[in-house]
Amino acid sequence: MDGLLEQLRAGLPAESLITDSDVTASYAHDMASFCEAGTPAVVVLPRTVEQVQHVMRTATALRVPVVPQGARTGLSGAANASDGCIVLSLVKMDRILEISPVDRIAVVEPGVVNAVLSRAVNEHGLYYPPDPSSWEMCTIGGNIGTASGGLCCVKYGVTAEYVLGLEVVLADGRLLTTGRRTAKGVAGYDLTRLFVGSEGSLGIVVKAVLALKPRPPQQLVLAAEFPSAASACDAICRIMERGHTPSLLELMDRTTVRAVNKMAGMGLPDTTEALLLAAFDTPDPSADLAAVAELCTAAGATDVVPAEDAAESEMLLQARRMSLTALETVKSATMIDDVCVPRSKLGAMLEGTAAVAEKYDLTIGVCVHAGDGNTHPVVCFDHTDADESRRARESFDEIMALGLELGGTITGEHGVGLLKKEWLARELGEVSVELHRGIKQAFDPLGLLNPGKVF
Amino acid sequence: MDGLLEQLRAGLPAESLITDSDVTASYAHDMASFCEAGTPAVVVLPRTVEQVQHVMRTATALRVPVVPQGARTGLSGAANASDGCIVLSLVKMDRILEISPVDRIAVVEPGVVNAVLSRAVNEHGLYYPPDPSSWEMCTIGGNIGTASGGLCCVKYGVTAEYVLGLEVVLADGRLLTTGRRTAKGVAGYDLTRLFVGSEGSLGIVVKAVLALKPRPPQQLVLAAEFPSAASACDAICRIMERGHTPSLLELMDRTTVRAVNKMAGMGLPDTTEALLLAAFDTPDPSADLAAVAELCTAAGATDVVPAEDAAESEMLLQARRMSLTALETVKSATMIDDVCVPRSKLGAMLEGTAAVAEKYDLTIGVCVHAGDGNTHPVVCFDHTDADESRRARESFDEIMALGLELGGTITGEHGVGLLKKEWLARELGEVSVELHRGIKQAFDPLGLLNPGKVF
Ligand SMILES: Cc1cc2nc3c(=O)[nH]c(=O)nc-3n(C[C@H](O)[C@H](O)[C@H](O)COP(=O)(O)OP(=O)(O)OC[C@H]3O[C@@H](n4cnc5c(N)ncnc54)[C@H](O)[C@@H]3O)c2cc1C
Ligand SMILES: Cc1cc2nc3c(=O)[nH]c(=O)nc-3n(C[C@H](O)[C@H](O)[C@H](O)COP(=O)(O)OP(=O)(O)OC[C@H]3O[C@@H](n4cnc5c(N)ncnc54)[C@H](O)[C@@H]3O)c2cc1C
Repeated sequence: MDGLLEQLRAGLPAESLITDSDVTASYAHDMASFCEAGTPAVVVLPRTVEQVQHVMRTATALRVPVVPQGARTGLSGAANASDGCIVLSLVKMDRILEISPVDRIAVVEPGVVNAVLSRAVNEHGLYYPPDPSSWEMCTIGGNIGTASGGLCCVKYGVTAEYVLGLEVVLADGRLLTTGRRTAKGVAGYDLTRLFVGSEGSLGIVVKAVLALKPRPPQQLVLAAEFPSAASACDAICRIMERGHTPSLLELMDRTTVRAVNKMAGMGLPDTTEALLLAAFDTPDPSADLAAVAELCTAAGATDVVPAEDAAESEMLLQARRMSLTALETVKSATMIDDVCVPRSKLGAMLEGTAAVAEKYDLTIGVCVHAGDGNTHPVVCFDHTDADESRRARESFDEIMALGLELGGTITGEHGVGLLKKEWLARELGEVSVELHRGIKQAFDPLGLLNPGKVF
Repeated sequence: MDGLLEQLRAGLPAESLITDSDVTASYAHDMASFCEAGTPAVVVLPRTVEQVQHVMRTATALRVPVVPQGARTGLSGAANASDGCIVLSLVKMDRILEISPVDRIAVVEPGVVNAVLSRAVNEHGLYYPPDPSSWEMCTIGGNIGTASGGLCCVKYGVTAEYVLGLEVVLADGRLLTTGRRTAKGVAGYDLTRLFVGSEGSLGIVVKAVLALKPRPPQQLVLAAEFPSAASACDAICRIMERGHTPSLLELMDRTTVRAVNKMAGMGLPDTTEALLLAAFDTPDPSADLAAVAELCTAAGATDVVPAEDAAESEMLLQARRMSLTALETVKSATMIDDVCVPRSKLGAMLEGTAAVAEKYDLTIGVCVHAGDGNTHPVVCFDHTDADESRRARESFDEIMALGLELGGTITGEHGVGLLKKEWLARELGEVSVELHRGIKQAFDPLGLLNPGKVF
């Protein structure tokens, strides 16, 4: 341990090392509930690539595990410390190095906050789509680590689609460059994509070349109330089947709507069973919204209200963005699931989730990236009640089983981390897990990077 | 060898095996020039996953190399046979298994021809964008193997962006399932993407889940004549910088235009130095084309002509699609390069290519996926002239060096195969190549899959 600090100090300025155990403890975990976290030996906050390389060389020399961290907003425990590890926080490497409107790329360090980048490129008439609801806090490095999604994915896709190239410090301290600055390129295996969603288990991302889009027109939002989840899902299927391309298509159930109203006095329709938000950022969004409104009404919507203007649209988005946080206030604790099913199976998924809630006598609020079939069932429970806690855990698992049965995945965007480790093997199967191990072995033969996570 | 045939026959119907050496010789290579090809021991044309598994189990048991093939339209020798190998042609596995308008996916076998799939999904109001100019011949398996591009990529991206999940027979015959049917998913490493562009070196793709888009409106094309490549490149940069999203942005130089005219009497403007084609498939394409026409004129275009209608648009696309083939008729032989540079460097790339042509006293026709910065310099030469052949080879290499210098890649879409093997290591660097070897080792420890290709 002394040797570790000494060796780290040899290549790092004093202010980038934190050893005070009160402070290091505050770096122990991300925002997932019920995931174990160990006690870090030290927290390092490097500012340069060389400093990251020094940390990894030291870690390799002394066989000390390393846990990379962004803003620790993760919801799967993937950034949780393990005992005696080096926590490697990338938040101080937060420079935007380049924005090119002609090449439509940005080059950034990993600690840049998502919303900071979004605003910066916006000033150049550009758009960085991936927008997790945590965007004011989470970092690009963390977004890459988890392959983050968000509200705009139904039209613009997820983080993975915007990462063109990376610089990565490997476990042994060597620097790897992957990918490219060009719009296309097929030279060699797609190592860039391999890092996206690898949850810090293959290397430390220290630089990223990101693809940008031209800034679209301001989107206009519509809210439709449905008497049941089933009728809302029916509308969703019709909207997609008819070839519409909404820039947002989100569903909140009654529990979510009420929680949001209670938290922020949003004035959403408290009594509705399902509230669907649809938006378009096309040149003539009101024409698109009118077509969607008609499909909603045909599917049984009781009320369809287009936003009056941009401000009202933004208010509806805010309501959706705070859904997870609002659901956390329903009971003393929550477990947030993240099951994604084929769009055509969304109705069955929501019906099944309601049945699970009834079976276990629990409140399960659901908000859904509906256009993507990505549900977030939030199991609300009293963590001081042992029986309710057990039922919560069981219902959480049953929801994942249901998702797999419907041809879905256990995680649409939040990742595996510690929370869903056992379930990952079930989804992937033996052959795939063995190949995962082979890849991990090729990148991190000593198993020092974020050990115990993912698989 | 007798053992090989006997064991293959044990699990395959007689008609799926070809041993007649006249016929097997016709499977020896793809459409790349100047790449070595060996003599296959046998050609196998399986119809089922089980048959593919039987082939791979046999190959593993007897340590016989296997070369997967689609339609052999590849331009890098990646599908060329090696001596004594099993050629595994997937063209008979050509069923479209499913098309879902709600989930916007198609599930296909690898031998489905690109254009066949495009037409089939079109009937459901859907669109499978990747459209290599060889689309009437090439297969989805080959497109995945090479991560193919095409004309629509500037707006819709390349093959990689449309592959959601795969079934793959591994070297030892085991069946691997990767990815998903859902719009999103982050469970585990992105093995799907690792296979895309791996040129048959990691496994045999036997099924693919592909993402589809709603069918866009018919695109309308504009042709602009420029007095120099530089002014055309200037227009390209301005178009992208202003936030336009053309569905096509292609450049043909004078040599290409003439070759196309000569081959098909297309009536393109023979004397122009650079012909730019731009298209939009937006709801109001003529408004977008008018804006682009203005930018072209400002950049120095001498003539800007929007297509009158869909038929004229299609004629211009045909002209562009036949460019490579037409350039092959300029001299007795060609070498087709595929260097992709950042869009902002396109002018420098074309200028440099012209300098290379002059230096080596060669005709080099260039057609460009301009919106992506992906150039195809086609070195035209007389292959019976030893000195000209040597100069051709040298100029080909010099063009790649130039691309790397400008921050580009040696291959935007045609792949590495045999043609650019040495150059790949140069682009990737030592650290990356070592990781590539580690991955290959994890998937194909005996090195039986497409040996000697890529790296
Ligand atoms: C209120 C709230 C709303 C949310 N909404 C969404 C949403 O809509 N969509 C969504 O997808 N997620 C959402 N999340 C989850 C979370 O915000 C995302 O997963 C986010 O991408 C995490 O970023 P971070 O910077 O906090 O990373 P962290 O949590 O610190 O780390 C995440 C993972 O990435 C790794 N990592 C971090 N930086 C690096 C690096 N430089 N190199 C290598 N590995 C690294 C870590 O080891 C860890 O495995 C939400 C979370 C909250 C609290
Ligand atoms: C006139 C012409 C125009 C062209 N235009 C373009 C263009 O615009 N854009 C572009 O990108 N390319 C273009 N190409 C190149 C070529 O058509 C593409 O690379 C195409 O994707 C190859 O498909 P194929 O079925 O012919 O595959 P093949 O050439 O048979 O094989 C290509 C690679 O994929 C592997 N492979 C094939 N099937 C499988 C499988 N089932 N599992 C695993 N590996 C497999 C092979 O081993 C090989 O490495 C063009 C070629 C020609 C001749």
